[in-house]
Amino acid sequence: MASKLIAIVAGVGAGTGAAVARKFAKAYPVVLLARKPESFESLANEINSAGGKAIGISTDVSDASSLKNAVETIKKEFGNDVGAAAAIFNASGPFLRKPFLEIPPEVFAASLGVSATGGILFSQTFLPLLLNGVKQKSEHPPSLIFTGATASVKSNAQMASFSTGKWALRALSQSLAREFGPQGVHVAHAIIDGVIDIPRTKEWLQGAGPEAKLSPDVIANDYWWLHTQPKTNFTWEIDLRPAIEKW
Amino acid sequence: MASKLIAIVAGVGAGTGAAVARKFAKAYPVVLLARKPESFESLANEINSAGGKAIGISTDVSDASSLKNAVETIKKEFGNDVGAAAAIFNASGPFLRKPFLEIPPEVFAASLGVSATGGILFSQTFLPLLLNGVKQKSEHPPSLIFTGATASVKSNAQMASFSTGKWALRALSQSLAREFGPQGVHVAHAIIDGVIDIPRTKEWLQGAGPEAKLSPDVIANDYWWLHTQPKTNFTWEIDLRPAIEKW
Amino acid sequence: MASKLIAIVAGVGAGTGAAVARKFAKAYPVVLLARKPESFESLANEINSAGGKAIGISTDVSDASSLKNAVETIKKEFGNDVGAAAAIFNASGPFLRKPFLEIPPEVFAASLGVSATGGILFSQTFLPLLLNGVKQKSEHPPSLIFTGATASVKSNAQMASFSTGKWALRALSQSLAREFGPQGVHVAHAIIDGVIDIPRTKEWLQGAGPEAKLSPDVIANDYWWLHTQPKTNFTWEIDLRPAIEKW
Amino acid sequence: MASKLIAIVAGVGAGTGAAVARKFAKAYPVVLLARKPESFESLANEINSAGGKAIGISTDVSDASSLKNAVETIKKEFGNDVGAAAAIFNASGPFLRKPFLEIPPEVFAASLGVSATGGILFSQTFLPLLLNGVKQKSEHPPSLIFTGATASVKSNAQMASFSTGKWALRALSQSLAREFGPQGVHVAHAIIDGVIDIPRTKEWLQGAGPEAKLSPDVIANDYWWLHTQPKTNFTWEIDLRPAIEKW
Repeated sequence: MASKLIAIVAGVGAGTGAAVARKFAKAYPVVLLARKPESFESLANEINSAGGKAIGISTDVSDASSLKNAVETIKKEFGNDVGAAAAIFNASGPFLRKPFLEIPPEVFAASLGVSATGGILFSQTFLPLLLNGVKQKSEHPPSLIFTGATASVKSNAQMASFSTGKWALRALSQSLAREFGPQGVHVAHAIIDGVIDIPRTKEWLQGAGPEAKLSPDVIANDYWWLHTQPKTNFTWEIDLRPAIEKW
Repeated sequence: MASKLIAIVAGVGAGTGAAVARKFAKAYPVVLLARKPESFESLANEINSAGGKAIGISTDVSDASSLKNAVETIKKEFGNDVGAAAAIFNASGPFLRKPFLEIPPEVFAASLGVSATGGILFSQTFLPLLLNGVKQKSEHPPSLIFTGATASVKSNAQMASFSTGKWALRALSQSLAREFGPQGVHVAHAIIDGVIDIPRTKEWLQGAGPEAKLSPDVIANDYWWLHTQPKTNFTWEIDLRPAIEKW
Repeated sequence: MASKLIAIVAGVGAGTGAAVARKFAKAYPVVLLARKPESFESLANEINSAGGKAIGISTDVSDASSLKNAVETIKKEFGNDVGAAAAIFNASGPFLRKPFLEIPPEVFAASLGVSATGGILFSQTFLPLLLNGVKQKSEHPPSLIFTGATASVKSNAQMASFSTGKWALRALSQSLAREFGPQGVHVAHAIIDGVIDIPRTKEWLQGAGPEAKLSPDVIANDYWWLHTQPKTNFTWEIDLRPAIEKW
Repeated sequence: MASKLIAIVAGVGAGTGAAVARKFAKAYPVVLLARKPESFESLANEINSAGGKAIGISTDVSDASSLKNAVETIKKEFGNDVGAAAAIFNASGPFLRKPFLEIPPEVFAASLGVSATGGILFSQTFLPLLLNGVKQKSEHPPSLIFTGATASVKSNAQMASFSTGKWALRALSQSLAREFGPQGVHVAHAIIDGVIDIPRTKEWLQGAGPEAKLSPDVIANDYWWLHTQPKTNFTWEIDLRPAIEKW
C-alpha cells in the first residue's frame, strides 16, 4: 500500500523546491509542479536516474483548472486511490520592492494569485490525497508544508506586494493546522528568514563567509524532520536563519 | 484650504461604516462608498439634512476601474486638487465558516478580492489624496484607517476564507504605516474583537447584558481619536473588545 | 461619591509619569509614587498650586511593605473606603545595554524587581481600590494602565536586562485584562516605541526635527483616552511612536 | 577533545528533563541539575549502568552561589577547560492558577526566581562553557535550549504567576539567540503547548486516546534535532503540541 503514497512539491526550481524534492524522493515517488517544464525537467531526470521516481507536470497553482489537470495526470500515473505522504507548497509569485504607489496592480494580483489563491487551491487539491494517506496508514503523518519568509511575519515598507500574500498564506496554514491536525494531517509553516544559497544569490553576501546563507539541503532536512514528527508532537511553525543573521 | 479636505469611507452599511461616516461628517464632507446605493442613500440624506455634506458613490473596491470612476466623481464634486483628511477602509468580503474542503474557490476569491485586493486598490487610489492633505496642512495628520477583526491575528479552523484576506490587509496596513508615516500620513489598523451591536446582531448574545457587544458609535470615536493623534505619537494598531469578552 | 475616587501614578519623574499625573489631576486627586521625594515634590506643589490635589509618597514598588505603607497613607488621607479611578504603572528599573556576560546579576535583579515584581505588587495593592471604584460607579471604568516599551515586544541583543522585565510586565497586563475586564476594571498596556522628549533626551536625535520624539503630554492624552473608553469598547494594547520612527 | 564536551540539563525529574538527559547521554557525558537528589539519582544510575556517563548535582538555579558550586563540581570532574555541547534549561517554578488577588507574593517570587532569574543565572553560568565548546570545534554548534509553554505566548486569566516568568524567559532566549548566534552558539526556545505524558498526568485526558499527550521522548528527539542544526540553518523557536490539541 505504501507504494501508492507520493510526495508533491509545488515551486521547484534551482533552490529549496529542488532540494526538498530530492530529499523526499528518497522515500516516495515525487510529483514536481512548476509552470515551466525547464524548471523540473532536469531534476526529474536526475531523480529517475538515481533510482528514484519523479514526474513533472506543468502547473499554474493560481489556476484551479491547471491543478485539476495535474491531479488527473497524477491519478493516471499512480491510480485513482493514490494517497499523499507529503505536499509541499514552495511557490512564490513575483513582487516589487518599490514605493507602494509605483507598483502596478497587476503585480499585487500576480503575487496574491500565487501566495494566497495558489496556496488555497493547492491545499484544496491535495488535502484529499493527504487524507487518503491517513487512511492508508502512512508511516509518518501525511504532511502539508508551506514555505514562508521574513515577510510572513514582518511587513516592511515597500514590501507589501510580497507580504500581503505571505501573511495570507501563513493564515491559511494556521487554520488548516487546526482543522486537519485532528484528522491526522500535519500542517506546518517554515519562516525562511535570510538569503538562501542558490545560483541566483551566488554574488550576494560575498565576504560574510560560507555560512551567511541558508542551505537549501538543510532546509530539506528540516522539512523531512517536520514530516517525521509523530502525532503526539506536531510543530506548526519553525523559523530558520543563518547564525550570523541580524533579526 | 481646509474646505477642500474630505473624508472617504468604504464599506458603509448599518454598522461601523455608518457610525464612522457620521462622526467624520462633523468635521469634513464625507464620501460614502458601497457597492449598492441602498447602503449609503439614507445615510447621505441623514448627514446632508443634519447640516453636513455627504455624497454616495456606488463602488466595488475590488475593481480598479470602479475606484477610478469614484475618484473622477470626487474630483468633479470637490475639485481636481481635492485633499483627504481621512480614508477609512471598512469593507469586508463574504466568507463561509465551513470545513475547508467544502468552500467553493469563488468564496475565497470574493473574500480576498475585497480584503486583500480591495485594500490595496483603495490605498493606491486615495493615498495621493491623503498626501495632498499633508500638503494642504490639514489640522490633523491625514489618516488611513483599516478595520480588522479577531481573524486578523488568529486564524481558526474553518475561518480561512475570512482570515487569509484579513491577514493580508493587516500586512498591507503595517507596510503602509512604515512607508507613509514619515511622509505625514497616519496609517492605523483596528482589531475589532467581538460582536458589533448592529441590527443584524440584535438577537445575538441576548442575556449577556447591554455591554456584551461593541458600540459602533464608540468605534467611530476611537477612529476619530486615532485621527487626531499628532505626528509625535502615532498608533499603528489598537484592539477593541467588550469588557466581558473572552479572549 | 466621586470625591473619593483618586488616581495613583507610580514612576513620576521628569517625563511620562509627570505628564500623566498632570492630566489625571484635572479630574481626580492624584497620588504620586516615587522612591525619592525629589521626584514628586515640585510636581505635587505645581498641581496643588494650580487648584488640583496631589500628595507624594516615597515608595519602592518592588517592596511589598513599602506599598503597604503607601496604602495606609492614602487611606489616612482619603478615607478607608477610598476608591481609585486610575492606577498607572510607569516605573522602570535600571538596566545595562551590554554584552550579556558582563552584566552583574544585581542589575537583572533590580530590573526584574521593578518591572516584574513591582508590577505585580502594584497591581495587588491597587486593584482592590479600583474594584472599589467600580462599586462607587465611577464615571469612566477604573483603569489600570502599564507603560511598556519597544523592548516589551522585541528582545534585542544586549537588551535582556530590560526586556525580561518588560515582557513579564506585558504578560501581567494581558492576564489582568482578561481577569478584571469582566469585573469592570479596564487594564491596558502601552508600547512606547521611540525616544520620549524629556530633559534627559534633549540632546538626542538633534537634527531629526521637532517631531522625532514622543511627546509626554500626548502620551498622557492617550492614557486619558484609554481611561475614558466605555465597557463596550476596551483596548488592551496600543503602540505609540513618532511618524518618522523606523520600526 | 570532543571527550571534554558535556551536556547540562537543569530541571530533571520524571518528564521532559529526564528524557532529554537520556537522549543527550548517548552522545555526551551529562550533568543533571535538580534541587533534590531524588530527582536525579536513579536517572544518573540508569545512564551510568547503560554505559553512558552522568553526574547529578543538587542545584538551585535561582541561587547564583548554588550554580557556582555546580560549576566547580563540573570542573573537578571534567577539567577546568571543560566545554559544553548543550545546556538545556527545563526548570519551572511553582505557580497557582487562582484569582490574582489570592496569590501570595511569595508564589510570584518563587516562580520568577526560577523562570526569570534562574534562566538568567543558568545562562550566565553555562554560556562560557558553550563558548568553550565553539572553540573546541564541537561537531554540532553548542546549543542553549529553553523549555517554554503555552503560557510563554499567551497570558490567560489567573495564569500570571506562571506566565510572567515564562514571558521573561522567552525574552531572554530571543536576546541571547541574537547575541550568541553570531558567536556560534545556537539558542532555541520550545513552546510545549499541551499536556506532557508523565506519571503525574497519567489520569489526565483519559478517553482522548493515546495520542492526546506530548511524548517526552519525542520532545527529546526534537531538542536533539535543534542541536544538530548547522550554523546555516538555526531555528530559534518551535511549537510542539498533540495533533488533536485545540489551540
